[in-house]
Amino acid sequence: MNSELARSLPIGVFDSGVGGLTVLKALREALPAEDLVYLGDTARLPYGTKSPKSIERYACQATRLLQEQGIKLLVVACNTASAVALDALKAQMSPLPVIGVVEPGASAAVQAKPGGSHLVLATEATVRLGAYRRAIEHLDAAASVREHACEMLVSLAEEGWTDGEIATAIIRRYLDDASASASSPDSVILGCTHFPLLRDAIERCLEPGTTVVDSATTTAAVASRMLDETGLRSDGDTAGAIELLATDGATRFARVGGAFLGGKLDASDIRLVDL
Amino acid sequence: MNSELARSLPIGVFDSGVGGLTVLKALREALPAEDLVYLGDTARLPYGTKSPKSIERYACQATRLLQEQGIKLLVVACNTASAVALDALKAQMSPLPVIGVVEPGASAAVQAKPGGSHLVLATEATVRLGAYRRAIEHLDAAASVREHACEMLVSLAEEGWTDGEIATAIIRRYLDDASASASSPDSVILGCTHFPLLRDAIERCLEPGTTVVDSATTTAAVASRMLDETGLRSDGDTAGAIELLATDGATRFARVGGAFLGGKLDASDIRLVDL
Repeated sequence: MNSELARSLPIGVFDSGVGGLTVLKALREALPAEDLVYLGDTARLPYGTKSPKSIERYACQATRLLQEQGIKLLVVACNTASAVALDALKAQMSPLPVIGVVEPGASAAVQAKPGGSHLVLATEATVRLGAYRRAIEHLDAAASVREHACEMLVSLAEEGWTDGEIATAIIRRYLDDASASASSPDSVILGCTHFPLLRDAIERCLEPGTTVVDSATTTAAVASRMLDETGLRSDGDTAGAIELLATDGATRFARVGGAFLGGKLDASDIRLVDL
Repeated sequence: MNSELARSLPIGVFDSGVGGLTVLKALREALPAEDLVYLGDTARLPYGTKSPKSIERYACQATRLLQEQGIKLLVVACNTASAVALDALKAQMSPLPVIGVVEPGASAAVQAKPGGSHLVLATEATVRLGAYRRAIEHLDAAASVREHACEMLVSLAEEGWTDGEIATAIIRRYLDDASASASSPDSVILGCTHFPLLRDAIERCLEPGTTVVDSATTTAAVASRMLDETGLRSDGDTAGAIELLATDGATRFARVGGAFLGGKLDASDIRLVDL
């Protein structure tokens, strides 16, 4: 592929559902001139309860569809797929680059506080995979890591109850359960794509001075650097387009996804595709 | 099949996940001498976001597996499958009987308050299907029905936070949203198999005198009547056995399911099957 053509292609973003739209939003803010195409595999969510083999197969199918449309960079905006299928997706996309959400979050936390104590808030599936722990310990042997499953934060974000008394009570309870007798962490990593919607509420429940690492914005920053390193940044200076694809449930995707993307979506904005 | 053999067979219970264990528990209490076999299609949950055609296919596959093991009665402990696939399952099981969870709940509400106002608390998928509304209006043209989606109650039940401040705040918020300016309902129907775990907390948030209809216990009562009507009640007088089958995730099934069934489960208590 010639480099001018490659630069003109969109960035592909893949998630099991709507959560990855927080990553799409961060990419839009960091890279306003890039075209973006998002694929949510809503027909087969959640990935977290599936076997690693199925997750890899699903992720490769989704990536194949994005490759057929033409993309220059793949962002895997799904913690489960990032933890399980990143190597397979890199092999499939090669020589074009692939970015997951786990490494950027882990790296940002370690940079914020070398040798620090980190608390990863995530889904049960992500905690079970232990990918943030491994990534942080790989980068900083002196770091200490706790991971805590916070399933209710997912439904809280999807329900749109991102502020107020109920959100605060649930967040406090999870932070209390996660801390037990341990001291307050130096950084809190939002290890689920849904959680950036709760960032303000979470920050208000933390000790002053705690760093909050949001995998969506850190992943977008890595994507921006990657485009420069590979010479794939768009030549355009007009606002890029966004295309939204899903495998099922356009109405729900539009309703929940609008809040995640920070705007209003209509079911007709989403194109249904088969994998 | 001779009737003695038929009477000795277990009752089959099918759900998309662990929620239906509340129905299994109610069946165990109503019918202590019956053997029970439960199949949770955990690999493919949630059904609510799938197409009606897929739901029917999944439900028929699950029923086929239970039929091959040998069952005398099928209880569909899944609101989505009850709403979408009951006719297909009845055809497949014929001449043996099939009971869903929607009709018994609707019928109990109408009997409790003819011409009354009913509030159905359910998942978004069940509300969208409108099965409780149709069933109630079919039984009682004078009834008024409101249906309200309460997704957070599902994760609340699965998290085991079935009591206390957070549960109360979430339930109050849903009841407020559901009522808007309307008057307090005569009956509240727990139209999701997860919600019996929250029954006490829900009752405490309602006006005194409101009837709470729990589809799990009403379904078990209908099953008991059905066994007598068909002559299929077990001759045994010893405690029946329970067998648990799932299509994925025995560890999570055991952890969450224990609370639903009202006891402790170990992953080795669950047999994994393929559909």
